[in-house]
Amino acid sequence: VPETRIALIGGTGREGAGLALRLSRAGFGVVIGSREAGRAEEAVRRLKPQAGVGRLEAAGNGAAIAGCDVSLLCVSFAHAADTVVAHRDAFRPGSLLIDVTVPVVFDAGRPRFVELPQGSSSEHLRTLLPGHVALAGAFKTLPAHLLADVEAPLDCDDFVCGDSAESRARAMEIVGRIPGLRPIDAGSLDAARVLERMTVLAIRLNRRYKVHDARFRVLGV
Amino acid sequence: VPETRIALIGGTGREGAGLALRLSRAGFGVVIGSREAGRAEEAVRRLKPQAGVGRLEAAGNGAAIAGCDVSLLCVSFAHAADTVVAHRDAFRPGSLLIDVTVPVVFDAGRPRFVELPQGSSSEHLRTLLPGHVALAGAFKTLPAHLLADVEAPLDCDDFVCGDSAESRARAMEIVGRIPGLRPIDAGSLDAARVLERMTVLAIRLNRRYKVHDARFRVLGV
Repeated sequence: VPETRIALIGGTGREGAGLALRLSRAGFGVVIGSREAGRAEEAVRRLKPQAGVGRLEAAGNGAAIAGCDVSLLCVSFAHAADTVVAHRDAFRPGSLLIDVTVPVVFDAGRPRFVELPQGSSSEHLRTLLPGHVALAGAFKTLPAHLLADVEAPLDCDDFVCGDSAESRARAMEIVGRIPGLRPIDAGSLDAARVLERMTVLAIRLNRRYKVHDARFRVLGV
Repeated sequence: VPETRIALIGGTGREGAGLALRLSRAGFGVVIGSREAGRAEEAVRRLKPQAGVGRLEAAGNGAAIAGCDVSLLCVSFAHAADTVVAHRDAFRPGSLLIDVTVPVVFDAGRPRFVELPQGSSSEHLRTLLPGHVALAGAFKTLPAHLLADVEAPLDCDDFVCGDSAESRARAMEIVGRIPGLRPIDAGSLDAARVLERMTVLAIRLNRRYKVHDARFRVLGV
């Protein structure tokens, strides 16, 4: 089986760092993408000592997307739509985009879910992507802080939604290869409405309880 | 300390049965309310063998509300608003209503969250209640099936939101007295938007995974 390579679009931030390391340790090739390829190269240099068997590479976002069958959208919500539109022609036919974004803004420090006409960030992005690109939502409720602390076990569930059963299955296969993370099939893409709000809930719990790693497990499944 | 008595408005269904028994076993007096007092009496007779030290009583909904400082709204979403409006003058000043309802409908068997102008059932009910009644949302994400199986440990978290810190504290104190249930302070009443959607997610998980008791635990808190 050839190694799956995964592009991390806007993968130079904290969320990208955690995903890059955990995916590399799970055996995936990882291409960290950035608007500036130099920043991606810097991230790769910084992360390489902690990486696993999966190779870490750097590229501009467009080249990263064009070089992989799976991409993860790791930019902040403010740049999600623009980034997808700018690179819509770079996606390979039949490739999968996994949307990690959450529409959250901070009002005087208080996290607030941004109500979108489409109901969720993932559903909004679906309207912007070419039909030949499959879309799933995953990794939304995982605390970036914990993701990046690669020696710490994640020990939680990750909810996956998608625009088809196949999209979900492809994303769940990737999630399930990361130790300590159980993929949960949350169903069609509109499940992003609850998953993205759960992230805002987790951020609020972090603040209220003065913790960093509030996250979810489903019992009874 | 005098025993707190809790009214279960529309408490003759499965959700009411589970709450009545678990609250009684936690030491609370419970008044099962129904539109027809006779049905409430029947429920009390049926449940009494499994009840705990807290006394089970029956009443019409209005009398149940008027006789207690805390009421739980256990009717289905379809009857939630009408029930609150019909009994708005029965609530004691300073009393607490805990809203258990979830705006879910079934389209050809598929559960769907009902989008409300106010964002959630709890926020809608807030607009219908007199100002002298405090409102919290709780017990929303617990599976009715598991609640009613009183020998089974709940073993999960219960998210509480409310219109004030005091409303939440009062509801959390009650939740925390039920064994196996950890109250989680989810913040202001608008958190009902995510909690009610989490219930719909749990119902969908039950169907997808062919289980009955999908429920949530927060890790890291």
